[in-house]
Amino acid sequence: MAENEIEYEAKGTYEAALEKSRQIEEDIKVNPSKYRVLTGDRPTGRLHIGHYFGSLQNRVRLSKMGVPTMVLIADYQVLTDHDAFDQISQNTKQLVIDYLAAGIEPGENTIIYPHSYVPECNQLMLPFLTLVSNSELSRNPTVKDEITKSDLAVVNAGMYTYPIHQACDILFCKGNVVPVGKDQLPHLELTRTIARRFNKKFCKKTPPVFPMPYALLSKTPSIKGLDGSAKMSKSLGNAVYLSSTADETAALIKKAKTDGERVITYDPVNRPEVANLLMLISLCNGQEPEAIAASIGDGGSGKLKSVLTEALNEELRPLREKRAQLEKEPDYIRQVLTEGAGRAREIAVKTLDEVRSAMNMVI
Amino acid sequence: MAENEIEYEAKGTYEAALEKSRQIEEDIKVNPSKYRVLTGDRPTGRLHIGHYFGSLQNRVRLSKMGVPTMVLIADYQVLTDHDAFDQISQNTKQLVIDYLAAGIEPGENTIIYPHSYVPECNQLMLPFLTLVSNSELSRNPTVKDEITKSDLAVVNAGMYTYPIHQACDILFCKGNVVPVGKDQLPHLELTRTIARRFNKKFCKKTPPVFPMPYALLSKTPSIKGLDGSAKMSKSLGNAVYLSSTADETAALIKKAKTDGERVITYDPVNRPEVANLLMLISLCNGQEPEAIAASIGDGGSGKLKSVLTEALNEELRPLREKRAQLEKEPDYIRQVLTEGAGRAREIAVKTLDEVRSAMNMVI
Repeated sequence: MAENEIEYEAKGTYEAALEKSRQIEEDIKVNPSKYRVLTGDRPTGRLHIGHYFGSLQNRVRLSKMGVPTMVLIADYQVLTDHDAFDQISQNTKQLVIDYLAAGIEPGENTIIYPHSYVPECNQLMLPFLTLVSNSELSRNPTVKDEITKSDLAVVNAGMYTYPIHQACDILFCKGNVVPVGKDQLPHLELTRTIARRFNKKFCKKTPPVFPMPYALLSKTPSIKGLDGSAKMSKSLGNAVYLSSTADETAALIKKAKTDGERVITYDPVNRPEVANLLMLISLCNGQEPEAIAASIGDGGSGKLKSVLTEALNEELRPLREKRAQLEKEPDYIRQVLTEGAGRAREIAVKTLDEVRSAMNMVI
Repeated sequence: MAENEIEYEAKGTYEAALEKSRQIEEDIKVNPSKYRVLTGDRPTGRLHIGHYFGSLQNRVRLSKMGVPTMVLIADYQVLTDHDAFDQISQNTKQLVIDYLAAGIEPGENTIIYPHSYVPECNQLMLPFLTLVSNSELSRNPTVKDEITKSDLAVVNAGMYTYPIHQACDILFCKGNVVPVGKDQLPHLELTRTIARRFNKKFCKKTPPVFPMPYALLSKTPSIKGLDGSAKMSKSLGNAVYLSSTADETAALIKKAKTDGERVITYDPVNRPEVANLLMLISLCNGQEPEAIAASIGDGGSGKLKSVLTEALNEELRPLREKRAQLEKEPDYIRQVLTEGAGRAREIAVKTLDEVRSAMNMVI
């Protein structure tokens, strides 16, 4: 283990993760090819502006900086806390359309692939399971939290072993940067543990197979639902989708929750709903939320909403035009997925060869 | 679910498993191609006469009756309760030599393959994990027992999820017959549960993907170690290996535990060690143990041991000759494994395609 890794693990705090994230951000600017980003989504529905500002823009940014990027569509993992599976294939294709429309460009450097088409990645479950103790899984705080949130009557073993799936997803491609939120840090910690244990146990005489992956913590404040809920979500009807029309967007913003005060001010603590809308405008036009508030002044909620509607529809216009075009090209969408799976498998086969070799299983 | 399956599951007892096993034995004689046997070993060492009489002969018998047979060498599963992995590859090749020498003939109908080379089988872990609850895994009696026996300080998640690996191994090739001992019945029960749940959840509009696999319970009494221990094992030094020489066999039998009585009789309850040696002679020459005892009469342990030595070395002579020949053909051994893995993957790819289709994940 390199010395700075020891130091990092010893700290083991959010501040340490944040500091490491800052260092990586700086280093990426000069050494983009030293990194490989692993990111992705579960195909549970279409992407909304929360995803757009929270993660899609960041992926496009990293990819444009020349960082090799793996975009995983985690189809199997839908089943860990969802019973419905009839939309998985359709959602997978809609995700690709959202990605491409947002500016992710599949190719040499950026691979979009569906989980279930890369058996060699998933096979890592077997060796990795033997490197984690049962009690480590039981006490993982994120799993505990996700179990609570998912409101599952019965916890299935897919949910329970979730951090190990994630380790496979990150390590099969030797990903070393994972853009995540604070809540995902315990998962990433376990991925590092698995990588470290594998290298220590099986690579005594050879170079380590796996790198240590670190979090790239988001700088974007989390975006609330338009009804003031903590999160945008389909079931709450409080989300603007990338696939929504301009009119649908306007209608949804019209119903957005605000407050009774006429004069618009940016006050996230006391006026969280108004602040959320101002933040969205800021994300669209790059102005500070305070300045936007000042320019609206006593225009009230009506003015605030119309400014947001215009800014958001303007921001999303090119994306939506591209989206509409891509909707007409199902063969191309399929090709992106097929080629992505093929490329991901090439990477996975190489890693699996190294794994078998380290574990003395080569025939 | 077919009616007789409901009946079987309702009984859920050892007697029901035994009755089902008998029915299958009868049906195999007339419909061998209706079945596919899944069997195999972990490559933790060479095979001894306990394996030979207990399972190898049965595999050869089934295979010769025309039942398609998959012989899995479960390399990954060595790691569930062993720390050492430096002999896995060598043990895998020695297993193949043992198999071929014993009369298993790889080809159209019989496939010998190493686990780690069939990613599509292992990928089934992902969907299957979501079909089993955490508490079902926690209360599996065989896992509990194996954890106790393995004397592991820490239970790893590989051991904990062992019944799910086994479900993948059986179901990826649509195996419907598994030759096992009584202690493995709970594992097989969980495999049926997974198959049933998968079919029920994902195959509402299509034919079920997975068959119900049943145990083929062994008729051979379990063979004790030569020192009277419950089991033959390398660590106890009480096992005759297929790879032992005739002289080594003689020396080991000479040290075998017996009792002080001069007259040899077959009395498994009161004279278990003597009975074990008589049983071994019986397995070699087909005579009843009582008749063998009578023919030795007051010849005592010395005579008993020399009869066993001759019978066993005679029984194993052709196998050992073939073994010695195969030891000189490492390329052929490798070819058996490579071709086996290739054929297993063809089967696995087809099953995985059906699984993705049922789960609505086809791109």
